[in-house]
Amino acid sequence: MESERYTRGWETLKGISGQTGERVIAALRDASPELARYTIEFPYGDVYSRGVLSLKEREIATLAALTALGNAQPQLKAHVHSALNVGCTREEVEEIMIQMAVYAGFPAALNGMFAAKEVFDERDKAESP
Amino acid sequence: MESERYTRGWETLKGISGQTGERVIAALRDASPELARYTIEFPYGDVYSRGVLSLKEREIATLAALTALGNAQPQLKAHVHSALNVGCTREEVEEIMIQMAVYAGFPAALNGMFAAKEVFDERDKAESP
Amino acid sequence: MESERYTRGWETLKGISGQTGERVIAALRDASPELARYTIEFPYGDVYSRGVLSLKEREIATLAALTALGNAQPQLKAHVHSALNVGCTREEVEEIMIQMAVYAGFPAALNGMFAAKEVFDERDKAESP
Amino acid sequence: MESERYTRGWETLKGISGQTGERVIAALRDASPELARYTIEFPYGDVYSRGVLSLKEREIATLAALTALGNAQPQLKAHVHSALNVGCTREEVEEIMIQMAVYAGFPAALNGMFAAKEVFDERDKAESP
Amino acid sequence: MESERYTRGWETLKGISGQTGERVIAALRDASPELARYTIEFPYGDVYSRGVLSLKEREIATLAALTALGNAQPQLKAHVHSALNVGCTREEVEEIMIQMAVYAGFPAALNGMFAAKEVFDERDKAESP
Amino acid sequence: MESERYTRGWETLKGISGQTGERVIAALRDASPELARYTIEFPYGDVYSRGVLSLKEREIATLAALTALGNAQPQLKAHVHSALNVGCTREEVEEIMIQMAVYAGFPAALNGMFAAKEVFDERDKAESP
Repeated sequence: MESERYTRGWETLKGISGQTGERVIAALRDASPELARYTIEFPYGDVYSRGVLSLKEREIATLAALTALGNAQPQLKAHVHSALNVGCTREEVEEIMIQMAVYAGFPAALNGMFAAKEVFDERDKAESP
Repeated sequence: MESERYTRGWETLKGISGQTGERVIAALRDASPELARYTIEFPYGDVYSRGVLSLKEREIATLAALTALGNAQPQLKAHVHSALNVGCTREEVEEIMIQMAVYAGFPAALNGMFAAKEVFDERDKAESP
Repeated sequence: MESERYTRGWETLKGISGQTGERVIAALRDASPELARYTIEFPYGDVYSRGVLSLKEREIATLAALTALGNAQPQLKAHVHSALNVGCTREEVEEIMIQMAVYAGFPAALNGMFAAKEVFDERDKAESP
Repeated sequence: MESERYTRGWETLKGISGQTGERVIAALRDASPELARYTIEFPYGDVYSRGVLSLKEREIATLAALTALGNAQPQLKAHVHSALNVGCTREEVEEIMIQMAVYAGFPAALNGMFAAKEVFDERDKAESP
Repeated sequence: MESERYTRGWETLKGISGQTGERVIAALRDASPELARYTIEFPYGDVYSRGVLSLKEREIATLAALTALGNAQPQLKAHVHSALNVGCTREEVEEIMIQMAVYAGFPAALNGMFAAKEVFDERDKAESP
Repeated sequence: MESERYTRGWETLKGISGQTGERVIAALRDASPELARYTIEFPYGDVYSRGVLSLKEREIATLAALTALGNAQPQLKAHVHSALNVGCTREEVEEIMIQMAVYAGFPAALNGMFAAKEVFDERDKAESP
């Protein structure tokens, strides 16, 4: 059922990306409700809920791809949050960025690392009393 | 020490990619001995031997990046071999390709999947009596 | 319903891309039945059947994107067939390639044009007695 | 004649992109008068004034390419203006972004849609009394 | 004058790329005479004949860009010929490929180096009695 | 020796990019000391200190690659500084951007030129009394 995919996707998205994901979807709904619906249904309702790979492994793949492509910084930052939410450590996020120097070059790796650092700092700030 | 990085890189490369990697390096040495040396030293001597991420997690990151970039099919095929060598199942490789449809589009995912299929077939052939 | 999306997608795909599309899906099914299903459901069952843009306008967008990205020649050739099937003339396909010189550079435009020429020649051959 | 290409290009550019295009060219002239001249002569004097495709079809191709490439947000926003100027509706612009999710992935589509939304908002503001 | 740009472009192209360039243009003319004309007029008639940079410096820039983009191997090979024709040594071509490992990653550098090696071998063969 | 590569790299980097490079490395060290170390060792300790190409020729290659890739504006701006430091004139930087219109399209060239202009303006400001 269509509605089943949406419901499953929305739960998966919230479980992985928390408030960050909810904010992205809210902004997207304001721009294009249909694209927001597809973003919930296909990536989250279909793909992220398939199993086979753990959510941590999926976020490793996503961080690698977005860092290598280098043209989607807002999504990269959102997925650094997601990766940390599903069990990646900051050290592991850093390792992915270092490895991308090999496959996509140093500028892509540096920009990925700076994006990750911004997320780390946001989270430190949010957690500090 | 320079020679330590080279030795460590060469052992790591052989451990991960086996004969496929040795053949790539042999061809590369024929074209540029210096680029072959750097390929052993930096990606393998420095990066792949850092720990923190498991080799399986590193190959997940690499397959994701190369599939998303979509402009390095020979390296993608070599890393499908490597991923299988370090413990990824064929189903997990397939999942990475499916996930790349989300981040890099369906053509990138399809071409990644076709490259993986070629490697699966090569391995079936090599193993058949 | 899931099956509705699949059915609609399959009909849309066959209507647009004919035997070329059927062959691509058959090869993809052999490599990954799940990715084949998603390819029918999301691009064709969801997106291409939305209306708003005509199928000709959609194929113009697709040819432009694939030529600009430059890393998916098999899909580009398949969509040159599709574009011609839904009413683009060869002259219009050529114009898109020329325009891509502006946005993605001359090498992308030339490679797009050579891919289109291969399709034109295939079709001439198929039609000749 | 060189001057004929320039004149034709300048008229075509103003006709399509209005004040947005004039502002881009003014800024570019300040940085590189020669690159500004080429931008008027080749894309607008040669390509956009060729006919064969309508201006609306040309802007569909351009929006698709720039959204897929994902590395030229200022030009993408300028061409959302141009597309609306030559007869695309906002719904059609949205459709192109949705379709790019298929060919370049969801991050490219989302960033394209957010760029389009910024332009829609600018135009609403400019038109409000 | 239009014809002046064409004449200057054609002479510049032949001077830089010799028979390789002539063959590319002949194949392109067969596919799209208009795109062939633009390829002679803008890149060669306008840009390569501007001076300021030497032809050797221009070919260094071109090899770097095409290797980094990684999606235009035929053009990359043609420009390895051109670079050697205008005074780059094979060692210098190799250095550009090595440097691209830094900016575009090792796969791009390796594929660039293998393309260069093919050209070196072609030239050795052509020169051997 | 590892430390030899680091020392050589640090000297080379400071010689080429001056305070701009030192600031980038300081920010990078704050985010990832290991990635900062690799950035000094491989690009600068290994590659830029190889000779064969002059530093000016190396910066031409780097500006071309970063402008063509179009996804690393901070690094592009840093290398405009470096290019000027090692002997490129502003006119030569401008020429590289113009040439990139041919290989990567006008949007990449325009964004490269605007980045260069920002650097030119920064340097004018810094030099004015």
